[in-house]
Amino acid sequence: MAFEVFVLGTGGMMPLPGRALTSVLVRREGELFLFDCGEGTQVSLKKLNLRWKKISVILISHTHADHVTGIPGMLMLTSQVDRTEPLYIIGPPKIKEYVEANRSILDMYINYKIVVKEVVAAGEVFAGNGYRITAFPLRHSKLCIGYSLEEESRPGVFFPDKAGEKGIPRGPLWSRLQAGESITLENGRTVSPGEVMGPKRQGAKLSFVTDTLPVPEIPRYAAGSDLFICEGMFAEELAQSALEKKHLTATQAASLAKQAGVKRLALIHYSPRYTDRDLKGLLKEARAVFSETYLTHDLQSMWIPNP
Amino acid sequence: MAFEVFVLGTGGMMPLPGRALTSVLVRREGELFLFDCGEGTQVSLKKLNLRWKKISVILISHTHADHVTGIPGMLMLTSQVDRTEPLYIIGPPKIKEYVEANRSILDMYINYKIVVKEVVAAGEVFAGNGYRITAFPLRHSKLCIGYSLEEESRPGVFFPDKAGEKGIPRGPLWSRLQAGESITLENGRTVSPGEVMGPKRQGAKLSFVTDTLPVPEIPRYAAGSDLFICEGMFAEELAQSALEKKHLTATQAASLAKQAGVKRLALIHYSPRYTDRDLKGLLKEARAVFSETYLTHDLQSMWIPNP
Repeated sequence: MAFEVFVLGTGGMMPLPGRALTSVLVRREGELFLFDCGEGTQVSLKKLNLRWKKISVILISHTHADHVTGIPGMLMLTSQVDRTEPLYIIGPPKIKEYVEANRSILDMYINYKIVVKEVVAAGEVFAGNGYRITAFPLRHSKLCIGYSLEEESRPGVFFPDKAGEKGIPRGPLWSRLQAGESITLENGRTVSPGEVMGPKRQGAKLSFVTDTLPVPEIPRYAAGSDLFICEGMFAEELAQSALEKKHLTATQAASLAKQAGVKRLALIHYSPRYTDRDLKGLLKEARAVFSETYLTHDLQSMWIPNP
Repeated sequence: MAFEVFVLGTGGMMPLPGRALTSVLVRREGELFLFDCGEGTQVSLKKLNLRWKKISVILISHTHADHVTGIPGMLMLTSQVDRTEPLYIIGPPKIKEYVEANRSILDMYINYKIVVKEVVAAGEVFAGNGYRITAFPLRHSKLCIGYSLEEESRPGVFFPDKAGEKGIPRGPLWSRLQAGESITLENGRTVSPGEVMGPKRQGAKLSFVTDTLPVPEIPRYAAGSDLFICEGMFAEELAQSALEKKHLTATQAASLAKQAGVKRLALIHYSPRYTDRDLKGLLKEARAVFSETYLTHDLQSMWIPNP
């Protein structure tokens, strides 16, 4: 599969017993990506009992307490394993100040390199082996960022049968075709890769959006996501309150999902006022707008297959 | 009773599922005192389901992450109730910088006054209605403080029978005796308060000590505590490791309890290496030195009666 997604917490504003603060861990080919890190994230991580080793990148939406105060604990936990690779922390301006102030005041023991990158413009903020991460602006009571984690597309499937039919001998010519090159056979005929290979394989895409009003950047950047994890903090009856506090209702999240043409919407960052039973009401409202909407719950895992 | 003690967490260094970081809440006549506040303390507080309202004072032993990173969340939680009284935070130098840096970087919404007092010398650091809090120096890898919460002694019990026998009429003369004054009756006889009242009633005393080597200040300041809550991080077989990391073994805690002549020792701040079953071994070692030793566990409550 492309991504394994582990929901570390689904709560907004304050943690509740059984509902940790919003945080999502994504595993892709052995690399780990953490989206937001509020108080208690390290406990959820331990509850999952993953044989986790190294988070490559921590992505922070904004520097409100409920999205960042788990960082010091996570940095210390990470010091329990040996690592040579740096840990990247990506977030809005102030995230560097937050990490450095806490590191210094708390005299934290860190046995690896931390690289903090502040996002100053929309676009690619990180790239690794076969994937890239894009940031886009949200609109909250303080600077807030949405993220997409996207795999690069890969060459199409190679069909040995078709190559055989065209009299192309197994060997270096196959490799050149697989690498996207046209070849010329001894009989003078030219064969292009498209004649022996399927169409390019699209990579999977996941987007993470929380603490925002609905803004056009969300459907633009989250377009075509296989999984769109999005705040659905309030029911429609509190739409006015959501507007004032600059949060999304579940229905607004569904509407953004529809505009973005995503495959699936996973709601997260629930107001502490709602019990798990109440959330079924939010889900119903959202599904009326976008049927492929689901509720996340703490410690859930989701598999995102290659498209 | 004098104090109700609620154990919010018993873990040292890192929180585990089922073992939150070391934190103790004490209730006395409607006032609340919180000793240390690591990541997740607000969740334990909610699990207790106290009809808690207002913490008067947060006392911090030292500014390592596992003892303070719950403060931002606690300050925000406290903003959920109306209060006019300030919240006091008492701790070692750097605690002010910690609170202020986090408040400012995280743009925390706080609807009450916070007063941070940095402890610079041993002695009384806070006093309220009928109690006082004393700080004393510990020895850890960074500046660390122990605390005693002590009730003032109160006048002894007044015996109406004895007053009657001496022919003292109920009324203003009784009040003067109860206030500690001697009176002269019409027959010229003088009566002192001691003739109609029991001895002064001692207040209760609780001490909280964690993250330290054994130092003589501990038994000196914790002397006579009704409850001595003390770190017992390691078993004796790791005494060398405890020494290097500047922590106490359970046996050392027991020895300090014995020297201090406390009524009861409650061990806390267990190394994450120990399971709950392992802790029975630590308890056994400690009880060989001081029989009135007990293990604390998460969400436990203890009542400390008036002596």
